[in-house]
Amino acid sequence: MPEQTTGASRPTLEAVAAHAGVSRATVSRVVNGGAGVRRALVDKVRKAVEELGYVPNHAARSLVTRRHGAVAVIIAEPEFRIFSDPFFERQVRGISRELTTHDTQLVLLWVEGPGDHQRIERYLNGGHVDGALAFSLHSDDRLPALIARSSVPAVFGGRPAGSGVTVPFVDCDNRGGAREAVRHLVSLGRERIAHIAGPRDQTSAQDRIAGYHDVLVDADPALLCQGDFTRESGARAMAELLERRPDLDAVFAANDLMAAGALGLLRERGIRVPQDVAVVGFDDMDAVVRDTDPALTTVRQDIEGMGRLMVKLLMRLLDGAAEAASASVITQTSLVRRASA
Amino acid sequence: MPEQTTGASRPTLEAVAAHAGVSRATVSRVVNGGAGVRRALVDKVRKAVEELGYVPNHAARSLVTRRHGAVAVIIAEPEFRIFSDPFFERQVRGISRELTTHDTQLVLLWVEGPGDHQRIERYLNGGHVDGALAFSLHSDDRLPALIARSSVPAVFGGRPAGSGVTVPFVDCDNRGGAREAVRHLVSLGRERIAHIAGPRDQTSAQDRIAGYHDVLVDADPALLCQGDFTRESGARAMAELLERRPDLDAVFAANDLMAAGALGLLRERGIRVPQDVAVVGFDDMDAVVRDTDPALTTVRQDIEGMGRLMVKLLMRLLDGAAEAASASVITQTSLVRRASA
Repeated sequence: MPEQTTGASRPTLEAVAAHAGVSRATVSRVVNGGAGVRRALVDKVRKAVEELGYVPNHAARSLVTRRHGAVAVIIAEPEFRIFSDPFFERQVRGISRELTTHDTQLVLLWVEGPGDHQRIERYLNGGHVDGALAFSLHSDDRLPALIARSSVPAVFGGRPAGSGVTVPFVDCDNRGGAREAVRHLVSLGRERIAHIAGPRDQTSAQDRIAGYHDVLVDADPALLCQGDFTRESGARAMAELLERRPDLDAVFAANDLMAAGALGLLRERGIRVPQDVAVVGFDDMDAVVRDTDPALTTVRQDIEGMGRLMVKLLMRLLDGAAEAASASVITQTSLVRRASA
Repeated sequence: MPEQTTGASRPTLEAVAAHAGVSRATVSRVVNGGAGVRRALVDKVRKAVEELGYVPNHAARSLVTRRHGAVAVIIAEPEFRIFSDPFFERQVRGISRELTTHDTQLVLLWVEGPGDHQRIERYLNGGHVDGALAFSLHSDDRLPALIARSSVPAVFGGRPAGSGVTVPFVDCDNRGGAREAVRHLVSLGRERIAHIAGPRDQTSAQDRIAGYHDVLVDADPALLCQGDFTRESGARAMAELLERRPDLDAVFAANDLMAAGALGLLRERGIRVPQDVAVVGFDDMDAVVRDTDPALTTVRQDIEGMGRLMVKLLMRLLDGAAEAASASVITQTSLVRRASA
């Protein structure tokens, strides 16, 4: 094996004890949190740890604390989606920042397809992480159930679909946010309001459709068109809607990326926004909103904050707070009015 | 604790043995690779595993195989860079695909700053992964040395800087590629060729500067300007170069993103490409190249293939192939000629 794998030069616990002039047991206690050790001794040990560059053997440490100091973040999307949709970056950013405050390592996993499920299950049950955070889950695959029955506590981003999976989750008020978007278009006097929906197997998309129908109980089904949360699908759906109902005067898209795709298509066709067609998105994603022309009216959700909340909920589960298991959080949304509607 | 954390319903090794009508030891051997077990028995056990939905206890399994079935991929960049520079997606894609063929879980880690180093060191030494792949390393921080001395074998993407860190690596021929780019500009009759360099603390950037100087031994230092591999830095450097040497007639940028930033700035100033200024990039990154106007001439490196090679090299290290420790790989580059030069 190569030289770098021997680790021969790493200082031991004994070396730290000798350097600090304390017992091995004292060093061990300090390394594992310092409970019951006098302040002066704690300082001595910490100084020795720093001077020697000692790194605790975490495998041994985890036998004492029963913690690995790592949490898995599982995104149920293929890698090309993760890197092209800024939603994931924002959610991961919130999670990453909050985990840092808990001195916990984030390990990111994603799912190219069902072929990856067994490996992820094995990893989760392998004693490598303290818990799992999962998002962008789809109701038609077995990943949510697999995570739910794994040996580590989990928190989902987004309400899980169907019955049987009872994992605490953090979500925004998708239905209320959608209602507000559509009511705003109604208040502007729009009468033929279309909806570009997200994937039917995700509850966020389902809830936004429900919010649209809450306001427009008798909406023409031809005004509802399916996308998949990508920019391209927004453009495609917009083209199809114009074909079906050339008289439409407003569009509510279930996320900003699809709204941006719709705006591009409308511009190509020479249709003026908002004069001819008003457009509202969902997310208020800087990376998308800053580039649209005209500026996009949208429903804001605090994606980074939701990531942080997922971590806080997981940490309460890890601390054994029983009530946390049923303490899902729904955050509020707000309409941000800009030029497009 | 919530219900999903108990795992009470998970089938045991004993249940699989009973279901298959074989001994517990046979199941264990099959689960760990099946060496020395008759084909018919292997099939029986696999069928029982599938029917019961058995998941091996990987912690126990790893005591036998001494493998965790997981590899850490460490990107030495903050999260916003990872999600905005398509280089990382391409490298990770190659790594991900190759790890899948080895049924190994990829866990992605990144570094927001030096504050994360100790946690990453602890994670690597914690017995959670079989090895580490690291890229976008910077010579001025302690991460490369920290990974090199960790308890797991590592392979770097990109030649490590300085002395002391003797980890096998995969890199492309940065210097040769840069030479080819600059020679191409010379062959077009360009006489005042500028270079927008990458960060000085990365060997890829250093080697590309060296390649530029190999061809233009007496280049005016005013024609060399520093960027940081981001699009914005390419635009800034282009503006500065035009200020210093308004007569420049070509630019070689050390990556495509900076070349795209330079092209945008040239367009803003009404400077024609390639008539007034020819531009060459480095990488041949689809996601960047498809959007530039005019199409970008660039030095192609096989980023995804390099990711795959990193995994192959690591797997040889894990198999104990001693010669792999010094078997770094340098891949070839090639010039792709398009409209910009």
